[in-house]
Amino acid sequence: MPVRIVQSTASAYSYPLLIKQLLLTPLSIAPDQEITYQGKLRYNYRKLRERIGRLAGGLAALGVESGQTVAMMDWDSHRYLESFFAVPMMGAILQTVNVRLSPEQILYTLNHAGADVLMVNSEFFPILAEIAGKLETVKTFVLISDEPAMPTSPVAAVAEYEAMLAAASPDYDFPDFDENAQATTFYTTGTTGNPKGVYFSHRQLVLHTLGVASVLGGAHRQGHIHRDDVYMPMTPMFHVHAWGFPYLATMMGLKQVYPGRYQPDVICRLIHEEGVSFSHCVPTILHMILSHAKARETDFSKLKILIGGAALPEAMAVAAQKLGMDLFSGYGMSETCPVLSIAHLDTSDLALDTEAQAVIRAKTGRPLPLVDLRVVDPQLRDVAHDGKATGEVVVRAPWLTQGYVGAPEASEELWAGGYLHTADIGNINPAGYLKVTDRIKDVIKTGGEWTSSLQLEDIIAKHEAVHEVAVIGVPDDKWGERPLALVLLKPELLGQVSEHALRNFAAHAIEAQGVSRYGVLLQVRFVKTLVKTSVGKMNKRLMRADPEALCL
Amino acid sequence: MPVRIVQSTASAYSYPLLIKQLLLTPLSIAPDQEITYQGKLRYNYRKLRERIGRLAGGLAALGVESGQTVAMMDWDSHRYLESFFAVPMMGAILQTVNVRLSPEQILYTLNHAGADVLMVNSEFFPILAEIAGKLETVKTFVLISDEPAMPTSPVAAVAEYEAMLAAASPDYDFPDFDENAQATTFYTTGTTGNPKGVYFSHRQLVLHTLGVASVLGGAHRQGHIHRDDVYMPMTPMFHVHAWGFPYLATMMGLKQVYPGRYQPDVICRLIHEEGVSFSHCVPTILHMILSHAKARETDFSKLKILIGGAALPEAMAVAAQKLGMDLFSGYGMSETCPVLSIAHLDTSDLALDTEAQAVIRAKTGRPLPLVDLRVVDPQLRDVAHDGKATGEVVVRAPWLTQGYVGAPEASEELWAGGYLHTADIGNINPAGYLKVTDRIKDVIKTGGEWTSSLQLEDIIAKHEAVHEVAVIGVPDDKWGERPLALVLLKPELLGQVSEHALRNFAAHAIEAQGVSRYGVLLQVRFVKTLVKTSVGKMNKRLMRADPEALCL
Repeated sequence: MPVRIVQSTASAYSYPLLIKQLLLTPLSIAPDQEITYQGKLRYNYRKLRERIGRLAGGLAALGVESGQTVAMMDWDSHRYLESFFAVPMMGAILQTVNVRLSPEQILYTLNHAGADVLMVNSEFFPILAEIAGKLETVKTFVLISDEPAMPTSPVAAVAEYEAMLAAASPDYDFPDFDENAQATTFYTTGTTGNPKGVYFSHRQLVLHTLGVASVLGGAHRQGHIHRDDVYMPMTPMFHVHAWGFPYLATMMGLKQVYPGRYQPDVICRLIHEEGVSFSHCVPTILHMILSHAKARETDFSKLKILIGGAALPEAMAVAAQKLGMDLFSGYGMSETCPVLSIAHLDTSDLALDTEAQAVIRAKTGRPLPLVDLRVVDPQLRDVAHDGKATGEVVVRAPWLTQGYVGAPEASEELWAGGYLHTADIGNINPAGYLKVTDRIKDVIKTGGEWTSSLQLEDIIAKHEAVHEVAVIGVPDDKWGERPLALVLLKPELLGQVSEHALRNFAAHAIEAQGVSRYGVLLQVRFVKTLVKTSVGKMNKRLMRADPEALCL
Repeated sequence: MPVRIVQSTASAYSYPLLIKQLLLTPLSIAPDQEITYQGKLRYNYRKLRERIGRLAGGLAALGVESGQTVAMMDWDSHRYLESFFAVPMMGAILQTVNVRLSPEQILYTLNHAGADVLMVNSEFFPILAEIAGKLETVKTFVLISDEPAMPTSPVAAVAEYEAMLAAASPDYDFPDFDENAQATTFYTTGTTGNPKGVYFSHRQLVLHTLGVASVLGGAHRQGHIHRDDVYMPMTPMFHVHAWGFPYLATMMGLKQVYPGRYQPDVICRLIHEEGVSFSHCVPTILHMILSHAKARETDFSKLKILIGGAALPEAMAVAAQKLGMDLFSGYGMSETCPVLSIAHLDTSDLALDTEAQAVIRAKTGRPLPLVDLRVVDPQLRDVAHDGKATGEVVVRAPWLTQGYVGAPEASEELWAGGYLHTADIGNINPAGYLKVTDRIKDVIKTGGEWTSSLQLEDIIAKHEAVHEVAVIGVPDDKWGERPLALVLLKPELLGQVSEHALRNFAAHAIEAQGVSRYGVLLQVRFVKTLVKTSVGKMNKRLMRADPEALCL
């Protein structure tokens, strides 16, 4: 017998999961709550809703229809928040443009996505000047600026953001439509080939928001997000919807703080002045903030920070804890909306010392509700959950991209066997914690076995002279590959330690911890700089190509 | 242009929202967490999952197929929890039978729902004996008993629950299917006419679980559910899925305690011995527990209790707070899965004194995420949110019954105008709190205006001699109706206060609080007993029919 599908009476409302419905709660329970841009501009949720209506009305007046794509180039701002809602709520698609890509790549993503409209901050006019003549689908430009007067634009603009909103009515009537309508698109910044476009539906974004709310709400004494929190993103809004937190913060009716371009002094000021208590970022950004002079006078003790996008070094977790921060890891990627797991501590873990806590905080975490996360061998069979056996992390969840834009082969590869392949290598311990040990392409194959570059990095980062480190595999006649640590020393400790001494420090720790049989093959070189991707991750592909060029 | 529907590559998993997926997290993050039945039987989530597989396998061996209906008659037990999952996960429909209805009504609901299988606890064999001959669709019986030996059954049973599980394999392969498949059905216990059947899909139950998790997780210092909580239902599992909390507690991997039949001494023992920290019930049940001798030796100071199903009297909120309980209201009904709103206090409200807090705790609360809750006039226009203007509460949410079983007219009436009509009268204050002031049918129409019976009850309940009170409208030549308070005195204070004195006490409070212009028309009568419905709510329809018969 088939299952029985529920019958709806003719007048019943069949509730589609649409982004507009995330606005119901804040308008009902926190209409006067504040949203601020850099502490300079402030408004409340009533005004947010009004401006969302005006933005949609303004775009509609420019001819934007459902099914079209509106691209955005801005730093983290109230305007970006408005576009997160207004554009999808019209039935159009928001393309969040990665402004840290090269102009050629930005051009590629806009043409590839078929963007119809581009909203662009004047800070990016130099990029716009380079690409404007080669844009194939963008016909309409909306200019944005924080300057008192709009700088001269390299394009004949149709509208200016604030003037467009002022001229439009707040009473745009946002329609209902299929919850599987596409809401957003953006391009992943892989280290090889052209960027690949991923895409998410209204349903996926609503479910992601509820999933993250459930897991962060269910926390007890650590990593709990609640309605007294003040939220500020430190992950760009162009990067996987700032991990979905602007949607979550809005649904919860939190005070929200948008910092614009990430400047450590502004970030520190906003944390202090606005009482920011919840944020998220990649390790590189946290490193940048903590290294800034202003950090020494900033009270971080109220701050919960979710770290993701790259492995959290345990040394950083220790340093942050010593400042009073509640730092913990999450896991996900562009393809996964992104959050898949969170490394919450159990209440009993809070009795552990800082170092022991850091080990848990730096894990990749435990899966969110509805997330079916597995570590499997090439035949999609589960590996043992013993904290040792490694395999590829594969996943099912209600919020994963269903493919790559216009790339059928890559899409099928991503979803081979009905699970999304993360290309991450990891293990699961008996307590259910995932630990990602490497990217498939970054793993070092020594003597036929895998050596985790991340584990070696963790060990070396603990030396007091080390500022940053990347471990890569270099070709070796005998072993296939052997690990090479590229180490950036703290400037003030340059000359105080030798490559040889650091190698011995690492070898001792490798032996003591028994992390890798072939870890003893490690070589250490000091470098002038490390190469990173546009979102601040180590670009190991480029470093592998010519490590010698980086060395001191 | 139409919206663009997201394209799925052939191998992509299109994730249907199915109840089975609520089991992913606990098995991953808390496989060894405990579930106990009365403290006598204990097992962990691994065992729960195994028994869910066995229950499905056993039912399949009896011929149960997807689309069929399996009815359950049991008190709150681990078996009920197993059936909450196993039956819908097979694609079958779980009918939760209200065992407090009369045998005739139980018979009606089983025949009306077309139940194929009945799982029944031996405690209900007397009922079964009365109805067995008249069951039109039930062909298969599964017997349950807590007795050492199964009592003699009035029917030729096909199986015994534990033996059936023991004989089945735990490896039942639960299939994927349409998320709009019906998962549950049960019958509302209206005070007029035959019970009406409501029904919920997998999708609705999953979304309800996430919605409740979001709102209770987002709380800060009050009413926060978290992963260290120990859960026990005190709302029957046959009544709107015990408000959905067994699904939530399971998804969160909480320790769960099932108390069987509600006996105040057992409840108090379990709260103490098992460390219960989160529960929910109707006011009547809490009243019963607090009135029991054992309550005096029980520490309630760790207990959070959500009150719903009927208005929480402010006096009860005060009494519970004085015992250290964190008591707060929720709002919903059988038709709404049920939770629509929760009366959390803001952190600033926690500085208020007990009485002032009780006013907020006894409100109906603020809507959950995704809940579009309005108070409207008969033309579906919003009334002012001034805490005074009243209208009917209407609602949209992703988890509302889409009709009544086999009752097209009542279904259309329920959904008139595309909103579900709650038949409750309420107001919304500027802070967004809903206060339900009456049922449409219980409201008292005096001099052409509405007088809230609940407000008058709240005032009278504050008198120290009053055990329970129900205010109803009685016909009056001059005023149309006037309010009559039927008062059950505390036995030990009988004779210490007169009807006249209590009326004066109420009149003073009515005048001081300015609650109702016509409140002064109130009459007070002492009664021998009050009439309640099967789920412990006041049955005002029956009391209105002949109030004199109840009086002392």
